[in-house]
Amino acid sequence: MNKFLHLAQAGVQQLVPYVPGKPVDELQRELGLSEIVKLASNENPLGIGTKAAAAIQAALPELTRYPDGSGFALKATLAAQLGVAVEQITLGNGSSEILELVTRTFLSPEHEVVFSQHAFALYPILTQAVGAKAQAVPAKNFGHDLAAMQARINQQTKLVFIANPNNPTGTLLGQQELQDFIAALPAQVLCILDEAYYEFVAPETRIDSIHWPELYPNLLIARTFSKAYGLAGLRIGYGISSSDVADLLNRIRQPFNSNSLALAAAEAALGDQDYLQRTIALNNAGMQQLTAAFAELGLSWIPSSGNFVAVDIGKPALPVYQALLHKGVIVRPIANYEMPNHLRISIGTAGENQVFINALKQVL
Amino acid sequence: MNKFLHLAQAGVQQLVPYVPGKPVDELQRELGLSEIVKLASNENPLGIGTKAAAAIQAALPELTRYPDGSGFALKATLAAQLGVAVEQITLGNGSSEILELVTRTFLSPEHEVVFSQHAFALYPILTQAVGAKAQAVPAKNFGHDLAAMQARINQQTKLVFIANPNNPTGTLLGQQELQDFIAALPAQVLCILDEAYYEFVAPETRIDSIHWPELYPNLLIARTFSKAYGLAGLRIGYGISSSDVADLLNRIRQPFNSNSLALAAAEAALGDQDYLQRTIALNNAGMQQLTAAFAELGLSWIPSSGNFVAVDIGKPALPVYQALLHKGVIVRPIANYEMPNHLRISIGTAGENQVFINALKQVL
Repeated sequence: MNKFLHLAQAGVQQLVPYVPGKPVDELQRELGLSEIVKLASNENPLGIGTKAAAAIQAALPELTRYPDGSGFALKATLAAQLGVAVEQITLGNGSSEILELVTRTFLSPEHEVVFSQHAFALYPILTQAVGAKAQAVPAKNFGHDLAAMQARINQQTKLVFIANPNNPTGTLLGQQELQDFIAALPAQVLCILDEAYYEFVAPETRIDSIHWPELYPNLLIARTFSKAYGLAGLRIGYGISSSDVADLLNRIRQPFNSNSLALAAAEAALGDQDYLQRTIALNNAGMQQLTAAFAELGLSWIPSSGNFVAVDIGKPALPVYQALLHKGVIVRPIANYEMPNHLRISIGTAGENQVFINALKQVL
Repeated sequence: MNKFLHLAQAGVQQLVPYVPGKPVDELQRELGLSEIVKLASNENPLGIGTKAAAAIQAALPELTRYPDGSGFALKATLAAQLGVAVEQITLGNGSSEILELVTRTFLSPEHEVVFSQHAFALYPILTQAVGAKAQAVPAKNFGHDLAAMQARINQQTKLVFIANPNNPTGTLLGQQELQDFIAALPAQVLCILDEAYYEFVAPETRIDSIHWPELYPNLLIARTFSKAYGLAGLRIGYGISSSDVADLLNRIRQPFNSNSLALAAAEAALGDQDYLQRTIALNNAGMQQLTAAFAELGLSWIPSSGNFVAVDIGKPALPVYQALLHKGVIVRPIANYEMPNHLRISIGTAGENQVFINALKQVL
């Protein structure tokens, strides 16, 4: 029994932390395996880009200095590339911190937060951390049911989370239905549009949302360098919002929340279009490779716009996950997303995908 | 007028963010200077240590992976070196995040927080961010007046901050008086003992506090790799507390709050005693160099146990600060600490200290 539990905030008392994908070295310790393929955390399989690596090298001598707390250089580059104002940008220790800053700035225990069933696990956790009430709206075909979400909004609602593409399902909303939903939100309801997987969406279906915060000042778009830009280990993401919302988030964030190497590497990564294009091409090829194998095995899957795919094992998936671990392959069980028969597979290199496919065939 | 201010938490509405020391490149942009000496942020003037740099190099290839959210390796090394249990440790994005995690876990708007006048500026900011009430207790000879602080504790008090050595004054509390104060705290009052400058304290006056959390489960000791270990840019610090308090802080922190390179570099830095000893020797020599110059100039200063010293200019110090800027020297004005006649000078290399001394002589 934790003797300090009763002294903690009510929300914290009920808090159950996020469970990350199993780290490679943890599995190595547990099973004594040397060769492990990890397709569990939607990470970029290409390895770090040359421009980001060079920027890190160049920044090393100054590492005894505090970071530039204003993020001047990265914000200027982002603003120029996205066509937004510097004042609209908030930098975070991963885009997960951007989400947290919004909840800490705007939510109190009397508020409600609306999101979809099967949506990213951090949404209910962040809601619980500040003691607000989560309203998870049943999904439609594993995706957001915007009409049902709209119907759930009431006087207590302060925040709506939308992940597009959604993790772990990979489902994508259309431009018009999403814009209509945001336009109809009451002025006191903030909306976080979580676009962590934005860069993987095919150009013909990609939503051009970046200027929406100019139309809808209660909208914040969250993006990350952890996925397509390959910088998950460095922790850097950003929010684009009205300058008023950004001003408040920048008041509450730590003065040095983004580290020096993350700032430098992210700026360099924005200038490395070659890395980005190779990432997307590898992802498209890997998605075809995996789904072809699923078809061959008679398994169905949820069509995904991200760098991962949720496959239906047709029976409880946890034993399959565990059997794959023993073959040195880490994927993600998603029973905690109310999808006990699915596994989420992150797209790897062709070789990693094949190791997984071979292991899956043996296990099934 | 910020149109979202009324939607923010009451505490956030009144929040005025921390003002960091002026970054070197900002001054370069403003004044067109090329050679700048920054003695403003209590940073390590040695540059990054070779072992930390090597650990960063070794970790680069895995940077597309998320960090180990459990901090397994760094915690194990810390636990072994400090003689504490792994379960007592919380890792943070700088020790400033450790302080923030405590305030977010335990404070509500009805609570009061006690700290000293002239104490670190983040304490009132973190208190304000959660809407709690700050109780700043007048200092005694620029240091903590523990009797007066004890007298300020009441039914609403939930947290006490003590910085030892204190920043920006450098004052140090004695072992017995501090232990008596902590032992007398009511069980529902948490105490953060902020030891960011611990490593700079002379061995004969250094307090051996690391096992106090085993005696006083309401005590958390915060330490950082930003100062003596030279990793300010990477953002890594830690808390040592009872395992019950650590459990709660680990519930509320982001799953990947510490980045991969920080984890690797901090672990390596713990094994680089040579770097630490050179840092301390450089600091001791620089402190003598600066205080000898102050004596020569007829200026008084506050005897400091940190890697900085607050010097009394004998008149409003802001014009002196600004004149020093124009000579390419950045120091820290501390009027916001109710010390308008003082400047805080971080100890630099012998050469940097001399540039500052020469500039100060010209300015005065």
